[in-house]
Amino acid sequence: MFSRLDRMIRRLRTQRACLDWAVGEIANLPGPILEFGLGSGRSYDHLRKHLPERDIFVYDRVVVAHPDCIPPDDRLVVGEFAETLPDAAVRFAGAAALIHADIGSHDGPASRALAAELAPLWVKMLKGNAVLLSDQPLTIAGLGELPLPPEAPGHYFLFRRAPLDEPSA
Amino acid sequence: MFSRLDRMIRRLRTQRACLDWAVGEIANLPGPILEFGLGSGRSYDHLRKHLPERDIFVYDRVVVAHPDCIPPDDRLVVGEFAETLPDAAVRFAGAAALIHADIGSHDGPASRALAAELAPLWVKMLKGNAVLLSDQPLTIAGLGELPLPPEAPGHYFLFRRAPLDEPSA
Repeated sequence: MFSRLDRMIRRLRTQRACLDWAVGEIANLPGPILEFGLGSGRSYDHLRKHLPERDIFVYDRVVVAHPDCIPPDDRLVVGEFAETLPDAAVRFAGAAALIHADIGSHDGPASRALAAELAPLWVKMLKGNAVLLSDQPLTIAGLGELPLPPEAPGHYFLFRRAPLDEPSA
Repeated sequence: MFSRLDRMIRRLRTQRACLDWAVGEIANLPGPILEFGLGSGRSYDHLRKHLPERDIFVYDRVVVAHPDCIPPDDRLVVGEFAETLPDAAVRFAGAAALIHADIGSHDGPASRALAAELAPLWVKMLKGNAVLLSDQPLTIAGLGELPLPPEAPGHYFLFRRAPLDEPSA
């Protein structure tokens, strides 16, 4: 008998636990951070506060974030993911230390389908041993799923990119 | 160095702790529940799940809640508070067991001014010994402020209506 209030608290605590875990994981892995799905800007704000020296690039369809949580123009790309991500996969090929993909909507099947469509592009953007956090489950070669940190009470999905054999950008 | 994510978690945990406390407080105090500010519908959903036998009436300027968290038409009044609350104060005079007033916007001074304007009407709606939860501080005769429950990590404001001397509806 969980209410929407209960579920929101659980979701946000889980997201925060995963972000905090990722911040520690990439401490010695240089490279930009990519966020897909700005939303209200809460997780973007969390990442920039905990990783103030990192470049954080954000992609979303529309910008509905709190005004103080909107990335600078040169770090924000607005448009449908299917249109903006192919360019991102070239621009950040093998470069990203962390991807946070929070693209889910209220339409669960559509959200999972979109994540499955975008996942190959995300994999291309990651460095070897880089981390991907996703609000959607993913099954794709090159990503190994990791257990959630014990502080995470709900569902989120953590992956580490396999070490790269091919030359990277 | 709290992020918006941290602050949202703290705010929702505080709200839930206060709602849960209020549910216990009014267990033996019959009467409807009034919510001012539906928002996303999270707190409405929490109250209806924990108090399934109570009548819950909700007032808000606009309806932007999740579709499954919108009250039935005969329990929902949409319009500017300054226009809808005088009628509510007559309709529910001395009747409400619990009021949850969650009217704040990003404009803090305007939110506090609105709460100060509405508070005399809320007081009129409350039964003796009824409870008012507010996201805004209030100072008004007839309401005694209570400490937050220990589970509440942030700010919220709890009040109990003094016993009524005058005849009530």
